[in-house]
Amino acid sequence: MTDIQAYMQSLGENARAAAEQMSLADVHSKNEALLAIADAIDAGADTIKAENAKDLQAGREKGLDAALLDRLELNDDRIAGMSEGLRQIARLPDPVGDITDLAFRPSGIQIGKMRVPLGVIGIIYESRPNVTADAAGLCLKSGNATILRGGSEAIHSNQAVAACIRDGLTAAGLPANAVQVVETTDRAAVGELICAKQYVDVIIPRGGKSLIERISNEATVPVIKHLDGICHVYIDDRADKAKACDIAINAKTHRYGVCNAMETLLVNKAVAADILPELAKAFIAKGVELRGCEQTCALIDDCVAATDEDWDTEYLAPILSIKIVDDMMQAIAHINHHGSHHTDTIVTEDYSKVRQFLRAVDSSSVMVNASTRFADGFEYGLGAEIGISTDKLHARGPVGLEGLTSQKYIVLGDGQIRE
Amino acid sequence: MTDIQAYMQSLGENARAAAEQMSLADVHSKNEALLAIADAIDAGADTIKAENAKDLQAGREKGLDAALLDRLELNDDRIAGMSEGLRQIARLPDPVGDITDLAFRPSGIQIGKMRVPLGVIGIIYESRPNVTADAAGLCLKSGNATILRGGSEAIHSNQAVAACIRDGLTAAGLPANAVQVVETTDRAAVGELICAKQYVDVIIPRGGKSLIERISNEATVPVIKHLDGICHVYIDDRADKAKACDIAINAKTHRYGVCNAMETLLVNKAVAADILPELAKAFIAKGVELRGCEQTCALIDDCVAATDEDWDTEYLAPILSIKIVDDMMQAIAHINHHGSHHTDTIVTEDYSKVRQFLRAVDSSSVMVNASTRFADGFEYGLGAEIGISTDKLHARGPVGLEGLTSQKYIVLGDGQIRE
Repeated sequence: MTDIQAYMQSLGENARAAAEQMSLADVHSKNEALLAIADAIDAGADTIKAENAKDLQAGREKGLDAALLDRLELNDDRIAGMSEGLRQIARLPDPVGDITDLAFRPSGIQIGKMRVPLGVIGIIYESRPNVTADAAGLCLKSGNATILRGGSEAIHSNQAVAACIRDGLTAAGLPANAVQVVETTDRAAVGELICAKQYVDVIIPRGGKSLIERISNEATVPVIKHLDGICHVYIDDRADKAKACDIAINAKTHRYGVCNAMETLLVNKAVAADILPELAKAFIAKGVELRGCEQTCALIDDCVAATDEDWDTEYLAPILSIKIVDDMMQAIAHINHHGSHHTDTIVTEDYSKVRQFLRAVDSSSVMVNASTRFADGFEYGLGAEIGISTDKLHARGPVGLEGLTSQKYIVLGDGQIRE
Repeated sequence: MTDIQAYMQSLGENARAAAEQMSLADVHSKNEALLAIADAIDAGADTIKAENAKDLQAGREKGLDAALLDRLELNDDRIAGMSEGLRQIARLPDPVGDITDLAFRPSGIQIGKMRVPLGVIGIIYESRPNVTADAAGLCLKSGNATILRGGSEAIHSNQAVAACIRDGLTAAGLPANAVQVVETTDRAAVGELICAKQYVDVIIPRGGKSLIERISNEATVPVIKHLDGICHVYIDDRADKAKACDIAINAKTHRYGVCNAMETLLVNKAVAADILPELAKAFIAKGVELRGCEQTCALIDDCVAATDEDWDTEYLAPILSIKIVDDMMQAIAHINHHGSHHTDTIVTEDYSKVRQFLRAVDSSSVMVNASTRFADGFEYGLGAEIGISTDKLHARGPVGLEGLTSQKYIVLGDGQIRE
C-alpha cells in the first residue's frame, strides 16, 4: 500500500465513523456547528487572507491566467460570503428524519418513508476555495460526512478554511472528522477517493467539463454530476412577442458565464421575420455575437453563418447561435439531440403545445414563458445548492439538501406476521 | 471493433431510439402492449415449453444441479405466472407524467416536478427465464427501453419469451426495440453492456451475490443493486412476549431461501431466560439449526456455538444465529456492523426506543413489531418490484415502477425574467 493509499484509507475510516454520528445529530447541534464555523471564518479572516496570499503568489509564479487567479482569490467580500452562506444553511429546515407517506396496508402494517443522510460524500473541486465552506455546510446540515479535495493551487486557502470548520464542529460537540479536507496535492488522492466504494457513498465533482468527465469515467463510486449547460429558448408561432423578446434577452445577457444561460435560440419560421430583426438589434447593442442558420442570416445583417459545431457548443460568452425551425416538433428534436439536458424554455400561449413541450423535452428543467436563468437552487426555493445535476439517477436539476439524502422505508406494526 | 462490440452498440442505438418513443407513449398503448404480450405468452406456451426443454436438456448434459434446473424450468404454472404478472402490471397506475409540488415562488414562477422514465435500463440476470417477462413488463410500463441479458443456460427460453414480447409491442404500435433480449451467450456482451454509458442509463443485476458484486465493481454505468439480506429481529426487554415469538418464528421459518428472512436473532439479556428456551423449542421443532453466543448456549440445549463468521452470514437456509445483547444500543451497533442494510425489526412496546431504533438503524427497511418478511414490493403496495435495493442512491428498499423513473423540474411562467 502506498502512502497515499494509506492516507486516503484513514480519511475514509474517519469519515465512516463520523458519518454514523452525524446521521443521528439533532438539528440544534448541526446549526450550532454551522454558526460556529461562520464565526470562526469571520474571526479568522486575516489568517485566511494570509494563507490565500501564498496561493495567489504561487499561482502568479506558475503563470496562472487572470480568470483563474480571480477565482482563487479570497477577499473580504468573499470571506463574508462564505460565513453568510453558512448562516443561511443554518436557517434552512433540516430534511433528516422527515417521515412521509405513512399509510396502512391490507395486512395492517403501516408503511412510510424516512429521509436519511447518504453517508459519506466526496467532493472534488477546482480553484475556488469558497466551495470548501459551501459544500461542507450543505453536507453537514444534511447529516453527511464529507471528504473535500480541492485544487492544488488553493491548498493553503482550503486548509485555512478547514481549520475553521474543525473548530466549529468541535465547539458544537460534533466529530471534527465530519468534514475532512485532503491535505496532499498528490493527484493519486483523487484516484483513491473516487474508487473508495467501501468508504464513500457518492462523489460530487465541481468544476470544468474535462475534470467532471474524467472523474465520471474513472469513478467506481456513484457520481452526481453536472456536465454542460447548452440551454435553449424556443419562440413558438403562438408566442407573445414582448414575452419572447424579454425572455430571450434575459436568458442570454443577464450573465454570460453561467450554465443556465441560453446558448441557442430557436424561432418558429412563421414569426421569425417579425421577431428576429428586432431581437438581433437588441443583442448586437449588448455586444452579443450572432451565429445563425442560413434562413437566420438572410433575415439579420451582422450575423455570421453557424457551423454544425455551434449547435453543440456551450459558449459561456456573449455569443448566440440562432436557428429557424419549421414547428415545435423540430425544436424539441433539436433540443433533445443538441442540448445538454439542462434547461430549456418554450415561449407560447398555446395550451396543447405547453403540455407537449413539458413532456417531450428531456431536460432537468423544462420551462414555459420563463427565462432559463431561473434554473437555480435559490430561485427554486431549495435555499442553496451543491450543483445542478444533468444526470437522471437520484437527483436531477438543482441539488439542495434533499438531494444529499435518501429515503428508507419504515414499517410500524402491532405484531403482524406474514401469512 | 469486435463483432460483440458492434452488436452491443447496435442494441444500444436501437434502445436509445426506442426510449425516446417509449417516454412519450400514453398509458393506453403501454397497457395494450402488456396485455398483448401476456396473450402471446399464453398462446405460445407450447413453443416456450419446447424451447425451454432444449435448455433443460443442455443443462442436464452440462451437469447443472437440481436447484439450478428447477429455476430454469418453465412449466404451465410458471408460464401462467408470467402472463398474469404482466396483466397485473397493466392494472397498476402509470407514474410517468405525474406532476407534484407545483408551488409559486416569490418571482412569480411556479415550480414543480414531473415524473419521467430513466431512459434505457440494462438488466442482467441468471437462470430464471421468467425474469425476462417480469423485468420487461415493469420497464415497459415505466416508459423505459430495456436491454435484457439472461443466463446462457436459458438462452432458448429467453428468446422464446422475447418473441412474444416483440409481438405484443408491435401489436400495440410501440417500437419492437423497446425490449431487446441479447441473442449471444458470449460473456463479453455483459462487459460491453455495463460500460455503455452512452446508451444505458442504469444497470440492474439480478442473481447471486457474486454476479452482482462483479457487475458492480466493473460497471461504469450506474448500478441499482441488491447484495445480501442479513436481516435481524431484536427482542427488547420491553417486548410483548407473544408478538416477539410470533414475529421471530415467522421471520425465520415462513420461507428460508429469501432475502427478507431473519438470519440473526438478537435478544435483550433481561428477557432472554424467559423467552429463548421456549422460542428455541419452536425453532427446533421446525427443524431450524441454532447457533448461539456463549450466553445463548448456556440457556438452550441443542445450540451450537456461533463463530465470528456466523454474524456476517446470509444462510438462506434453516439455520439461525442468536446473540444476547446488553441493551438496544448494542443491538443497533450489531445490526449496523454485521447486517447488510436490508431489513431489521425491533419488538418492543417502548415509545422512545421505537423512535431511536427507527432513526439509528441504517437499513432499507426498519420495522417495529412486524415480521421482516413484509419487506416486499407487493406487501408495500408498489404492485410489483424489480428488486430490493440495498444501495442508498436513487432507490432504497423495494423498487417498483417509481424507482424506474426520475423527476425533472418544470417551471410555469407568465413571461418572468430574472432581475
